[in-house]
Amino acid sequence: MLKKYMKGYRAERHLVHKLSKMGWLAIRSPRSGRIGLPSPDIIAAKNKELIAIECKSREQGFKIPMDQLNQLKEWEDKAGAKSFIAWKLSHKDWYFISLKDVIKNNGNIGKKFCEENGKSIESIFGF
Amino acid sequence: MLKKYMKGYRAERHLVHKLSKMGWLAIRSPRSGRIGLPSPDIIAAKNKELIAIECKSREQGFKIPMDQLNQLKEWEDKAGAKSFIAWKLSHKDWYFISLKDVIKNNGNIGKKFCEENGKSIESIFGF
Repeated sequence: MLKKYMKGYRAERHLVHKLSKMGWLAIRSPRSGRIGLPSPDIIAAKNKELIAIECKSREQGFKIPMDQLNQLKEWEDKAGAKSFIAWKLSHKDWYFISLKDVIKNNGNIGKKFCEENGKSIESIFGF
Repeated sequence: MLKKYMKGYRAERHLVHKLSKMGWLAIRSPRSGRIGLPSPDIIAAKNKELIAIECKSREQGFKIPMDQLNQLKEWEDKAGAKSFIAWKLSHKDWYFISLKDVIKNNGNIGKKFCEENGKSIESIFGF
């Protein structure tokens, strides 16, 4: 469990630093900072563009729980953010899948779905 | 030290919940989540408005270190946020002082300065 947590932590930390190098201001919201309010893993901002990210680093497909989807939706509806699920597979770069696509697929994310709908970090943040 | 930390933690937590009730999405960035990148205590967003907040809950005047001022400035310059120092005095509501005013005063914040330049939570977030 700790190993899994550390893997996720390192991946998130790496993503935040990568976004920073691309000129974004990005903060992690560790579990300890969550206080019963909508809180994605990472918030990134640049030139008034706001992006909310829920990160997953797993080797197999998974389902995003409805409450996490709703929290990301709140960031879109109230804050004007764009929301993404970011999936990190070993030895690959992050895939970003828009919340809209994930909701259409009932929260299910598998490798085929990810290859069809996932976008690269450059295509989302590279401006 | 712990008591001081807990007082600050409770005050921040209370502020985040208050902003949430006012329709803002707000997240705390606890010390544990900071990884050498610009990171204010609270980020709040609503309708593409972004606000970065450094919180202080002390009973006497204080000076904001230059690196904290620079971090808030980065959120303004790169992310398009408005940045504030929020000061909570016992038995009073928060005062919000704009980063610009704090920089002009070389980072020094005292009670008189705060009364002259501080704004209420409603005047910053009440829309």
